[in-house]
Amino acid sequence: MTSTINPDQMVMSTDARGNSADVPVAGATNQHDIDQITAAAASAQPEWGQARPSQRADVLRKFAAAFADHTDEIVATADRETALGVARLTGETQRIAAQATLFADVIEDGRYLEVMVDPGDESAGVPEIRRYLIPVGTVAVFGASNFPLAFSVPGGDTVSALAAGCAVVAKAHPGHPATSELAAHIMRRVLSDAGWDPGLLGLVHGESAGTALVAHDRTDAVGFTGSELGGRALHDVASGRPRPIPFYGELGSVNPVVVTPSAAQDRCIEIAREYVASATLSAGQFCTKPGVIFVPSSHIDEFTEQVTLALADCPSAHLLTTPIRDRFRSHVDAVGSEAPVLQGATGTDGDQVQPAIAVVRLSENREMSAHWYAECFGPFSVIVEYDTPETCVRMVASMPGSLTATLHCADVDPDAPAFAAAFAPLAGRLVFNGFPTGVRVSHAMHHGGPFPSSTNPLHTSVGATSIRRWLRPLAYQNAPEALLPPPLQDSNTWDVPRTKSSGSS
Amino acid sequence: MTSTINPDQMVMSTDARGNSADVPVAGATNQHDIDQITAAAASAQPEWGQARPSQRADVLRKFAAAFADHTDEIVATADRETALGVARLTGETQRIAAQATLFADVIEDGRYLEVMVDPGDESAGVPEIRRYLIPVGTVAVFGASNFPLAFSVPGGDTVSALAAGCAVVAKAHPGHPATSELAAHIMRRVLSDAGWDPGLLGLVHGESAGTALVAHDRTDAVGFTGSELGGRALHDVASGRPRPIPFYGELGSVNPVVVTPSAAQDRCIEIAREYVASATLSAGQFCTKPGVIFVPSSHIDEFTEQVTLALADCPSAHLLTTPIRDRFRSHVDAVGSEAPVLQGATGTDGDQVQPAIAVVRLSENREMSAHWYAECFGPFSVIVEYDTPETCVRMVASMPGSLTATLHCADVDPDAPAFAAAFAPLAGRLVFNGFPTGVRVSHAMHHGGPFPSSTNPLHTSVGATSIRRWLRPLAYQNAPEALLPPPLQDSNTWDVPRTKSSGSS
Repeated sequence: MTSTINPDQMVMSTDARGNSADVPVAGATNQHDIDQITAAAASAQPEWGQARPSQRADVLRKFAAAFADHTDEIVATADRETALGVARLTGETQRIAAQATLFADVIEDGRYLEVMVDPGDESAGVPEIRRYLIPVGTVAVFGASNFPLAFSVPGGDTVSALAAGCAVVAKAHPGHPATSELAAHIMRRVLSDAGWDPGLLGLVHGESAGTALVAHDRTDAVGFTGSELGGRALHDVASGRPRPIPFYGELGSVNPVVVTPSAAQDRCIEIAREYVASATLSAGQFCTKPGVIFVPSSHIDEFTEQVTLALADCPSAHLLTTPIRDRFRSHVDAVGSEAPVLQGATGTDGDQVQPAIAVVRLSENREMSAHWYAECFGPFSVIVEYDTPETCVRMVASMPGSLTATLHCADVDPDAPAFAAAFAPLAGRLVFNGFPTGVRVSHAMHHGGPFPSSTNPLHTSVGATSIRRWLRPLAYQNAPEALLPPPLQDSNTWDVPRTKSSGSS
Repeated sequence: MTSTINPDQMVMSTDARGNSADVPVAGATNQHDIDQITAAAASAQPEWGQARPSQRADVLRKFAAAFADHTDEIVATADRETALGVARLTGETQRIAAQATLFADVIEDGRYLEVMVDPGDESAGVPEIRRYLIPVGTVAVFGASNFPLAFSVPGGDTVSALAAGCAVVAKAHPGHPATSELAAHIMRRVLSDAGWDPGLLGLVHGESAGTALVAHDRTDAVGFTGSELGGRALHDVASGRPRPIPFYGELGSVNPVVVTPSAAQDRCIEIAREYVASATLSAGQFCTKPGVIFVPSSHIDEFTEQVTLALADCPSAHLLTTPIRDRFRSHVDAVGSEAPVLQGATGTDGDQVQPAIAVVRLSENREMSAHWYAECFGPFSVIVEYDTPETCVRMVASMPGSLTATLHCADVDPDAPAFAAAFAPLAGRLVFNGFPTGVRVSHAMHHGGPFPSSTNPLHTSVGATSIRRWLRPLAYQNAPEALLPPPLQDSNTWDVPRTKSSGSS
């Protein structure tokens, strides 16, 4: 969200490793085009939204097949734009296919419609009520810099919204416009080939186009993954419109990790090594990166020593974009002026960054907490020494909201309950004896949490229940059978599961 | 929300019929008191929220019993402040008891916790995930003028939030401060007697206290029922905070009704009479009042004649507050300068208002739609003549969002499907061959809809699912059994229903 693209300019695809020249991809989208793209989406949505879920599931499975068929092209394009590497991006391509398939399963199962029937009692004047969920309309999806696929045009927000029966207009992230165009092209061709209007998936480029999209009267909800600054600005646009719309933003998250004294006693070396691996995975560019780890005084020296050793083997890396690299370096420099910073391998060229982990000892000024309360994208994390578990619980409890909070504890651990209790108000997912990177895409997964980790803590952007963001209830009172939608008709030709209440209330 | 109470002033209880002098009830709540009240709520909430649902259900049932025991006092106090009458207020007292009981049943059932378990696969490195819903914290509840009980301190927002395990701080409506104090007193005594901290239910008075409550860092969500002006202002405060919080506002709703030509042919007289009864029920002070009815040219004369007859029998009435009365009269005068207005009985005193129904014929200027697009609180509604069903569908489709949309149609009716289709994007509840007043409190009921009828169309303020507004997901990854909350433990001592996924995804 940091580029300042003039609407009259071309959007350029940049080689994240600097090995090749910029390539123009598309013109930044202007207001006239946004009007047309949102009108096309709104026009295509009703037929798609009213179709039997199995029809949309069929298209979602075709998306999955198309992603698999085009893996090489997708990975090559995304790797050039993000430098995330072939292995990671091949995995991410498998993930977008799995996500599309998951939502095909979710909508075919039918429970997502939440059909409820309250029988009426004519003699008592009590009406019959039948309720289900309908799509909200057109959803704007903002792609993230760090997941050019799984949290971008072909990612979870898009396929969950399409699964719900919504149309989608995606805003391409400026860090990977060509990947965005390729993904949209593949998906629009699948839609066309299956006989659907490809206007169901629109794509816009440019920061001002993104703002205009959120403000547009035809946009009914927004899914966003990105920075706190950019996300907050768009949240405020969505809330301030004449007709406010739901804004589901995943912004910054520090993801605290606590090592109890007992856990440090049992597994200090193992935890230190896994911590470095998690904090530097994909060059520290995961929203679930452990940004701070609290280590007891009893083991701080041993822990730091192991981190130093592990870090020496951590390669330097190209970050996703130049602004991300510049912010990373400024942050590390700022922290480094106040606390020692351990560093990884030196980069092979000047554009790479060295992994860095700061160590805050008890003797340091506690006002330094500002450095570990703010997310720093890239391979940076902070080790904080604590003296007593009580002190540490207080430090953790004062932190801003996070997607995750992690506890390393022993099998029998007197300190564990107090930490688990302190974590619950702080985060959306509590991880035990592991690390928060690597988010499982499943039914029970929750990827959201108190602000700023998400702008609406009731919803998730990963997993089966993320479809709820794009659905709203509609109730029918005493409707003639012929005027009910299929899932509410007595005949239930879609064969969806329904909950029938006793009718007593 | 129109009073301009100085924080230093007393809050006065006013006799809505003007038969007795104002009575001072409480001082308007200042910032210091708000800090204390929200701190008390936040301090009491964790134990309440972590209690077994049956313990909270026990308290909810005691609320119901206490409301029944104190019906006479409650009704007398509320009738003096609102002039809604003993019959209506006795019914409303029964409703708050029924609502408290409904939520006791909902939480004891346990499905509201939405427990899901995704088994892990250690050999494949797939973690186990267990998810359920936890209370969001402290909820601010804004009472409505027109429901001094059911949508105020002892109403659905409060009992659903307490059922969820949240603490509540209620903002008393200035139209019924004594009723609010009485209800809070009864509920706080029930809490105390049952061994709970009465700080779980706070009460504040005054417009500036309401704004400060929404802005307060200890407030985690807001439930509001009231005007579009006041609700929008508070929505913007909730969205604009450093940490934005969910704001569930039910604002204005016009609730269009359409009579098809076939229905008019079958039941013109019956529909006209029921329409007048619904539009003037409780002096037209329901959020589901039919604000506009579309009648075909073929029957407009007969319909208007029947409305005129029915209206002659409609008594004048005292409205809830002086500002509501003044706005009603201004609105009727403004419409009356452009279209004929049919009127009910003359009031027995100058403070009463006459029911009024405007008639907009085809020959009238269609720009008059502004008069029926805006809610007018009180016994006022508009009859709009239409020539063809196609024209009427277009008029309806251009209306702002409503809580309800109603269709009167024949058993076999060629025009009904087009109207039903036009209604779905417009409203949260579609009513057939009836009228929208009289909202059933049940499992499938949805009371919400596109803006401005509610600020978040995903949620309802009536019925079992309204509890979802006050709950957020929390996931546990690979947690030791001892650190899981009871509903997620293998032993499941709370005996809550759980969904277990196949673990394949």
